[in-house]
Amino acid sequence: MEIFVYRNGAEKIDESFSRENLPELLADKENLVWVDLEQPTAADNKILSDIFHFHPLTIEDAIETRNHPKVESFNDYLFFIVHGVTMETNSTNFVTRELNVYLGENFIVTYHYEFFRSINAVKSQIRANTFVCRRGADYLLHQILDRLVDLYLPVVDDFDTAITNLEDRIFQMKKGSNKILLEIMALKRSVARLIRISSKQLDVLSRLAGGEFPLIGENILPFYRDIYDHLHRVSLLAENYRDLVGGLLNIHFNVVANRTNDVVKILTIFSAIVLPLSLIAGIYGMNFENMPELKTRYGYFLTLGFMVLLAIALLFYFWRKGWIFQSEDDEVE
Amino acid sequence: MEIFVYRNGAEKIDESFSRENLPELLADKENLVWVDLEQPTAADNKILSDIFHFHPLTIEDAIETRNHPKVESFNDYLFFIVHGVTMETNSTNFVTRELNVYLGENFIVTYHYEFFRSINAVKSQIRANTFVCRRGADYLLHQILDRLVDLYLPVVDDFDTAITNLEDRIFQMKKGSNKILLEIMALKRSVARLIRISSKQLDVLSRLAGGEFPLIGENILPFYRDIYDHLHRVSLLAENYRDLVGGLLNIHFNVVANRTNDVVKILTIFSAIVLPLSLIAGIYGMNFENMPELKTRYGYFLTLGFMVLLAIALLFYFWRKGWIFQSEDDEVE
Amino acid sequence: MEIFVYRNGAEKIDESFSRENLPELLADKENLVWVDLEQPTAADNKILSDIFHFHPLTIEDAIETRNHPKVESFNDYLFFIVHGVTMETNSTNFVTRELNVYLGENFIVTYHYEFFRSINAVKSQIRANTFVCRRGADYLLHQILDRLVDLYLPVVDDFDTAITNLEDRIFQMKKGSNKILLEIMALKRSVARLIRISSKQLDVLSRLAGGEFPLIGENILPFYRDIYDHLHRVSLLAENYRDLVGGLLNIHFNVVANRTNDVVKILTIFSAIVLPLSLIAGIYGMNFENMPELKTRYGYFLTLGFMVLLAIALLFYFWRKGWIFQSEDDEVE
Amino acid sequence: MEIFVYRNGAEKIDESFSRENLPELLADKENLVWVDLEQPTAADNKILSDIFHFHPLTIEDAIETRNHPKVESFNDYLFFIVHGVTMETNSTNFVTRELNVYLGENFIVTYHYEFFRSINAVKSQIRANTFVCRRGADYLLHQILDRLVDLYLPVVDDFDTAITNLEDRIFQMKKGSNKILLEIMALKRSVARLIRISSKQLDVLSRLAGGEFPLIGENILPFYRDIYDHLHRVSLLAENYRDLVGGLLNIHFNVVANRTNDVVKILTIFSAIVLPLSLIAGIYGMNFENMPELKTRYGYFLTLGFMVLLAIALLFYFWRKGWIFQSEDDEVE
Amino acid sequence: MEIFVYRNGAEKIDESFSRENLPELLADKENLVWVDLEQPTAADNKILSDIFHFHPLTIEDAIETRNHPKVESFNDYLFFIVHGVTMETNSTNFVTRELNVYLGENFIVTYHYEFFRSINAVKSQIRANTFVCRRGADYLLHQILDRLVDLYLPVVDDFDTAITNLEDRIFQMKKGSNKILLEIMALKRSVARLIRISSKQLDVLSRLAGGEFPLIGENILPFYRDIYDHLHRVSLLAENYRDLVGGLLNIHFNVVANRTNDVVKILTIFSAIVLPLSLIAGIYGMNFENMPELKTRYGYFLTLGFMVLLAIALLFYFWRKGWIFQSEDDEVE
Repeated sequence: MEIFVYRNGAEKIDESFSRENLPELLADKENLVWVDLEQPTAADNKILSDIFHFHPLTIEDAIETRNHPKVESFNDYLFFIVHGVTMETNSTNFVTRELNVYLGENFIVTYHYEFFRSINAVKSQIRANTFVCRRGADYLLHQILDRLVDLYLPVVDDFDTAITNLEDRIFQMKKGSNKILLEIMALKRSVARLIRISSKQLDVLSRLAGGEFPLIGENILPFYRDIYDHLHRVSLLAENYRDLVGGLLNIHFNVVANRTNDVVKILTIFSAIVLPLSLIAGIYGMNFENMPELKTRYGYFLTLGFMVLLAIALLFYFWRKGWIFQSEDDEVE
Repeated sequence: MEIFVYRNGAEKIDESFSRENLPELLADKENLVWVDLEQPTAADNKILSDIFHFHPLTIEDAIETRNHPKVESFNDYLFFIVHGVTMETNSTNFVTRELNVYLGENFIVTYHYEFFRSINAVKSQIRANTFVCRRGADYLLHQILDRLVDLYLPVVDDFDTAITNLEDRIFQMKKGSNKILLEIMALKRSVARLIRISSKQLDVLSRLAGGEFPLIGENILPFYRDIYDHLHRVSLLAENYRDLVGGLLNIHFNVVANRTNDVVKILTIFSAIVLPLSLIAGIYGMNFENMPELKTRYGYFLTLGFMVLLAIALLFYFWRKGWIFQSEDDEVE
Repeated sequence: MEIFVYRNGAEKIDESFSRENLPELLADKENLVWVDLEQPTAADNKILSDIFHFHPLTIEDAIETRNHPKVESFNDYLFFIVHGVTMETNSTNFVTRELNVYLGENFIVTYHYEFFRSINAVKSQIRANTFVCRRGADYLLHQILDRLVDLYLPVVDDFDTAITNLEDRIFQMKKGSNKILLEIMALKRSVARLIRISSKQLDVLSRLAGGEFPLIGENILPFYRDIYDHLHRVSLLAENYRDLVGGLLNIHFNVVANRTNDVVKILTIFSAIVLPLSLIAGIYGMNFENMPELKTRYGYFLTLGFMVLLAIALLFYFWRKGWIFQSEDDEVE
Repeated sequence: MEIFVYRNGAEKIDESFSRENLPELLADKENLVWVDLEQPTAADNKILSDIFHFHPLTIEDAIETRNHPKVESFNDYLFFIVHGVTMETNSTNFVTRELNVYLGENFIVTYHYEFFRSINAVKSQIRANTFVCRRGADYLLHQILDRLVDLYLPVVDDFDTAITNLEDRIFQMKKGSNKILLEIMALKRSVARLIRISSKQLDVLSRLAGGEFPLIGENILPFYRDIYDHLHRVSLLAENYRDLVGGLLNIHFNVVANRTNDVVKILTIFSAIVLPLSLIAGIYGMNFENMPELKTRYGYFLTLGFMVLLAIALLFYFWRKGWIFQSEDDEVE
Repeated sequence: MEIFVYRNGAEKIDESFSRENLPELLADKENLVWVDLEQPTAADNKILSDIFHFHPLTIEDAIETRNHPKVESFNDYLFFIVHGVTMETNSTNFVTRELNVYLGENFIVTYHYEFFRSINAVKSQIRANTFVCRRGADYLLHQILDRLVDLYLPVVDDFDTAITNLEDRIFQMKKGSNKILLEIMALKRSVARLIRISSKQLDVLSRLAGGEFPLIGENILPFYRDIYDHLHRVSLLAENYRDLVGGLLNIHFNVVANRTNDVVKILTIFSAIVLPLSLIAGIYGMNFENMPELKTRYGYFLTLGFMVLLAIALLFYFWRKGWIFQSEDDEVE
């Protein structure tokens, strides 16, 4: 548990307070108090109920970790859950974790089990400069959310790269590949998860930015709208990716069909040329006593010649059908 | 039929009453009466009409078992139908049963043909401790609904496992499998049923939690919103699963196409290598009298040598095409 | 044309009146008049305009038979069109016919070209007992609509059976079947028609049940909501069936692909085993003079032995690939 | 340019006026003036601006021909664009042309580049009988729109025929047909165009029929609702056709897959029967000196007999697999 | 940076002012000032904050280049972002760039990194004639937006051509082509991008044209509605193209399947005819001592004759199946 206190006009953040001081600090509306509960203990949970008197259901929600983003309004505080992307997240394994936030008139409580890059960055920022604290709890919170949402963008770029990369590999693959299919499925899942999370999160941000809650000052609203816009961009791109990922399966299938077609063509050409020649050879391999050709002087050579001509004729036929010796202009491989 | 009566402030639930006492018990607004009709008899049905005077259409709905979740408001009571999952339900056979509920100012009537784990749990709870009864009929009902909805979650996890399991089996199958297709279809049906039920049930819960009905007190509403949130999570996951199950058929198809492609390649390689060699053998098996090669000393061995060279050349050609002897990096099998 | 008159409090329906009595009967608001026009004649059409003075456009709509369900409100009557299922309807040929209804304060006019089971049932009912007439024209009409909608349910069950049946046949079919495809298409069409009709009809019933029209009394509205609920169930199921029917084409395709894969495997196994053996036989069938093996004592038998070994090796190879001699656990056939 | 003037109560339409009379005619509110501008000239365009003083943007829209249906309301006139089907339109080439209409209190201006059957029909009608003019400009306009919309219905019937016809041909085709695919694509395009046009046109008609514009009298509104209903029917059918056309591609694909499956089966049966027999023949064609069977008296005949038995065994095997000699019950061809 | 000043009633645009004059110019509400910032420098950015005092978030948005179209309203100015198509844009690479616009009572600020054809055209126009300046900043802005949106139309036509062209090539391709697949994917992406951009841009224009902002005068609104209409047409066509492009993959697949079917047929015909003949040849190539046929005088010729008859019979069989010698009526190739 870390407690950051900004006393109006102070140049430095005061980090020296402990749990016992909280009631007093909160009572003075001139203070801005930020309580960050990372990897909270049972004792930390008690702060929520005993000092802040938050609604027990919100405390349950905070402790639990299977919630989707949502916002709930109470008399003198807001409770909401947003999701941030983890550092390990990538296109085939999109993972988010919950950040539970309580916003009061002069306090913020952040409750989370894992390390958040966005929260850490804001801590460093306010240690260096109390500027962002001067505008109140709502603006300080905006700083956290802004960074949290900005960290979605590299993930989205990752999706873009992953899709292009998969597409390239599909076109270059020499045979239908289950590995690529597995990756498409993983990507599909990640994108679905991103869409699910970001659509719920958009709801939350749209309400925060909509002027519905008096705890977020009117002059601060444009900053929340800005966060909303950024997340909206993420969300639009994600829906686009869903379509494109869906298309990849089709493309994979078309490419495999193209290749099967090519393979069958090669089989057909070989069979269609060799089998008739073999038949001729077979005929002259028969043991009939009366087969006049066998006794002619050049029968063998004429037969060989005829075989060559037949092979050429068949090759010409397949060339006319466009199966062989075509310029590969129309082929990427 | 079981009757539970909680007299204001009592430490114990009174289960000693029978049908005859009901009018008197209900008249005293200090009492909280819960009538649970499990496997109701015709006599039980008469209670609904003769003692509670419920609207005949709601009684018909209660008796019938083909209703979807819905809520109807009357002067002094609410009637609604929710669905709970059965104990036997699983990912390939999602089954729900109806729970018909009447909620009045100081009574709850639950009407159902089958055993409900949630109802049983609440019975045990109130026998042990009357705490939940103190907050009134609406809160008692919340206990039942909360448990009923919580029992959806393991089913949803089941779906998750089933999808991952099917996906693994698709990639590992050695041949296209109708059994897997059958399971995909069963899963598809189950998910469709879950979506249908939970979307209707969400409507019901959203109205219960929305403050529309005065019978559900304002201080109790957050608890209903909590149930709504849980079911919403189920519903979001279910829609996600629908997409993923839909994808499974495509994946199955792609995997089968990959395999057919592999099979045709093997056929082609065998044919393309063996057939030309057979042709050569066939040619020297012809019975022409004048075939000079046949009489040379090393003709046979040269021919065999040429056959080997031709085979190697063809193998090289297919290796270049990437059909054989490739590292299996790109293959999962 | 049949005219049913219920005089307030009467025990029997009076069917003795003819067209001439209508103006007088209608003028007495104590009477309830039901005019059923089945297979209406031009003379019947004149009643609509000359006696009831209905809007000419509604009369046109009634005479025409290509209308979808709709409702229109006029000063002192409602005009609406609903569709009932024909007796001959089934899953592959879903057919409905129009029922045109005028509802006034003390009259109902039903106009239809074909026999309606629901109308006939209500006629029998009121001949036996005037109970349903006592509650007014709106309640009498409810009786007709209720039965009409209830007749949709067996059709929906039919769809369920047809889908399961087709699915079974797809998995059991020994070859890709155009007949099954034709049936899927017919089913697809029927379901689309059912969805189109029921969605329009739901609009009509939702308006009738919504309290919008004073001609339908407030105490009668729950009965209309009940009809709405029943049709809604039909509609939800129908949308479900659309998805499942759409899935059938995919399943058919997957099953055919599985089978083609199996067929190609058999071809490959035969070819891959027999062709190399034939090559060996071909080689020793060559007529070179100097082929030392031919002169050895056991050359023939060694060759045969080698052929057997090669065949076994290839069979082992294909067994390892899982193409042959596998337990059929994973196969339904 | 044609000018039709109906003077209140007149028995005949007066067509004798020219452009110069227009201001005077329009000033007299008792007159009903219809100006039809077919293949309008620059001079005609000037009438719109100089005499009627229409908004320049609407005049631009009228002159241009790439607009979709829309309606715009001005102080004393309405401007709207609707689309009519051309006479040459058919299921594979759905073409519409624009009709620009200005409706004022006592005038209609129709502006179009091509011949409209609906406009021509109304001209004939009012020349024969001024009845429709008596009810005012809004009713006269209704006549034109009614006929224009009615001409959509045969096109929709055309789609129905085309889809059924294509479906039949798909099932009867002896090989996968690119010609059918081309027709499906053309149909798909036509249906998409119909949906696009009719959905925009429905918006226009819904506003015209909704009572939003005082220029369309309340007693005339039911007639516009009637047109709306007709177009709505067209629109519903069109969306249905979109689904069915989409299904045709799938069906085509399934049918081709069925056929490929059949073809591969024939190949497999031929190969699997002939190749082993050829191997046997090949073995006894080897030239080993010590092949005892060759010298037996009935070796040849026993071998032939064995070949026949093997062929029968293989045929039996394929018959058991259901590949051959099956009743064709399950096949349509 | 270019500054255009129109002094009320002036015949010429004054381009002689520089940054220092701006505060004074803007203070005089009779002036219309257009500041065009192309490839803006840091100094230009300072103008936005120091002279115009725009909200810092809008300035950030202007400087950044990853924004989607949006509009934001402030006390005395509007800020919005629209996208214009680049000159290099084409159907397989749809590229747009941002145009940031500030609209005040008597000023426009346009901020963009790249050359805009629309802006350039308006510059030329106002240099030639100050007419469009007389109607105020809102009308001048309309000129820019109108041209910007009009430049979308050729792109849309490009899509149309590209789709038709691809369709033709798919039907004419002699083998499944990955190059065509790549182009379909590129087209799919472009169309998705166009839909995304134009749908957001429609939102912006719908709000500009909706009368929501007093800065856009009521008499100017129809002109903005006109732009909205044009973009709406683009958007409708784009959605249409999405369907058609999606269909192309299916068509490609069907065409490849048709071809594979053809190829397999050729293979089957060759194999089915040649293999049995080879078997016959093989039989008479056996070396049994007792093969009476071999010694008959015409055995060889009878055998050849039988082979020919068998070949003819098989050809007849395949002709009956419709595989060969069919008129190509049903084939496009």
